[in-house]
Amino acid sequence: MRVNKDQLKRMKKNEFVRTAIEYVDAGVVITDPELPDNPIVYTNNGFEKLSGYSADETIGYNCRFLQGQDTNQDDIDKLRLAISNKEKIKLEIKNYRKNGEVFWNELQIYPVFIESEHQTYFVGVQQDVSKRKYAEERSDHYLEQVKRLSTPIVPIDRNVSIVPVVGEIDDERLELLLHNVSAHIQKSGDEYLILDLSGVSHFTSQLHKGVYQLNQLIKLMGAMLMITGIRPEFILEGIESDFSLSTVKSFSSVKQALVSIQ
Amino acid sequence: MRVNKDQLKRMKKNEFVRTAIEYVDAGVVITDPELPDNPIVYTNNGFEKLSGYSADETIGYNCRFLQGQDTNQDDIDKLRLAISNKEKIKLEIKNYRKNGEVFWNELQIYPVFIESEHQTYFVGVQQDVSKRKYAEERSDHYLEQVKRLSTPIVPIDRNVSIVPVVGEIDDERLELLLHNVSAHIQKSGDEYLILDLSGVSHFTSQLHKGVYQLNQLIKLMGAMLMITGIRPEFILEGIESDFSLSTVKSFSSVKQALVSIQ
Repeated sequence: MRVNKDQLKRMKKNEFVRTAIEYVDAGVVITDPELPDNPIVYTNNGFEKLSGYSADETIGYNCRFLQGQDTNQDDIDKLRLAISNKEKIKLEIKNYRKNGEVFWNELQIYPVFIESEHQTYFVGVQQDVSKRKYAEERSDHYLEQVKRLSTPIVPIDRNVSIVPVVGEIDDERLELLLHNVSAHIQKSGDEYLILDLSGVSHFTSQLHKGVYQLNQLIKLMGAMLMITGIRPEFILEGIESDFSLSTVKSFSSVKQALVSIQ
Repeated sequence: MRVNKDQLKRMKKNEFVRTAIEYVDAGVVITDPELPDNPIVYTNNGFEKLSGYSADETIGYNCRFLQGQDTNQDDIDKLRLAISNKEKIKLEIKNYRKNGEVFWNELQIYPVFIESEHQTYFVGVQQDVSKRKYAEERSDHYLEQVKRLSTPIVPIDRNVSIVPVVGEIDDERLELLLHNVSAHIQKSGDEYLILDLSGVSHFTSQLHKGVYQLNQLIKLMGAMLMITGIRPEFILEGIESDFSLSTVKSFSSVKQALVSIQ
């Protein structure tokens, strides 16, 4: 500590606060719920930059000019309810700038008692979180693609496709596999599907059940399942259970499975 | 306009500004470069919440207590340079809260002349953008997986793998394919690679060159490329060019290619 702290604290005066509020990107509005239609009575620079409207264009008006066609009606209802109950609320809502551009607004509203005015106002803090929302949307989109691609269906002959399974099979992946295989068979008219399990490290009871379900499904569709690359114990394991694989055709390699097809 | 605008404007007074600055999530600090080591002279509530340090713990100190082991040294150098040149700067930097937690700080620093003090201060605005950065990292990670999975290498017999190509081949995908195939052959010791092009809709000159390069690469590694699912014209097209495919073995189906292997 090389400077006098008390001296510094004296400097924490109004102009510092006024300077600070001018530099934040967040938009801040204060509205007066005692006036008709709860109009804006204060906006900071951040709000002017965020919304594209000058203070002159917004003071005296209700904040709903930020809403537009794509704003979720449920969100609007939640906002109304919180304001009529004088409760705080935080949500992410699609809003519109003056130029029509859409942005994701992380909106927080607080009821605040302002001493000098002897009444409660609403303070609304708005943060443009579009970049984060779009990154999250991209991430979800690519994750969906990863899931889809991680169990590819590869056509290898006129009426035969192969599904190589690599890694663990969980419930979600199994459901996706069943869905994709049935869509594929319906579309391609394939008569044979080879499920290659040589890339699977752990033969779990879940995988066992999955193979059983896939076999039932493919039979129902008038096609045939062939499995390759598994240890014989895997077939035998469930032989007494409800999910016996004793009727599933198994081959030591994909080539052998292919050669067996006349 | 149902309320008196002038009346509202009179209300834009100090207490509204002080209220506004208390509610923004952004951290704001003001530092005094005329004092030794450019110490903090003002912080808002947002900075206390963001950093975990109370104003008492930070006023009088240089902001570098936010930095830690994972803070990029280049970023620190850029900050120092901007401050010594009294220039504004904006960057995203890894910072640390009091409890040791890392966060991504979108930091903006402005030199600002404060009238009442007759001197220039620095205003630093800090926004926690960790959620966005992590979403971007996830998105990049999944995109990498999508690229890798979109050209899978599927082992189908003891020494044979198949690469089904679906959709367009551009430079980036071609490079990835060459890289993945050479890594796969090296690791697996496969003697044959079947490139199945039945899922390709447009046979471009780029694809032609790609197949040529793949053939050269696989030959160099002591293995053999077989292509399936293409029209004979594709082979003939480039027969006069530098990228002739006349030496590449072509089969009408994957099954035929497999059967040809002794």
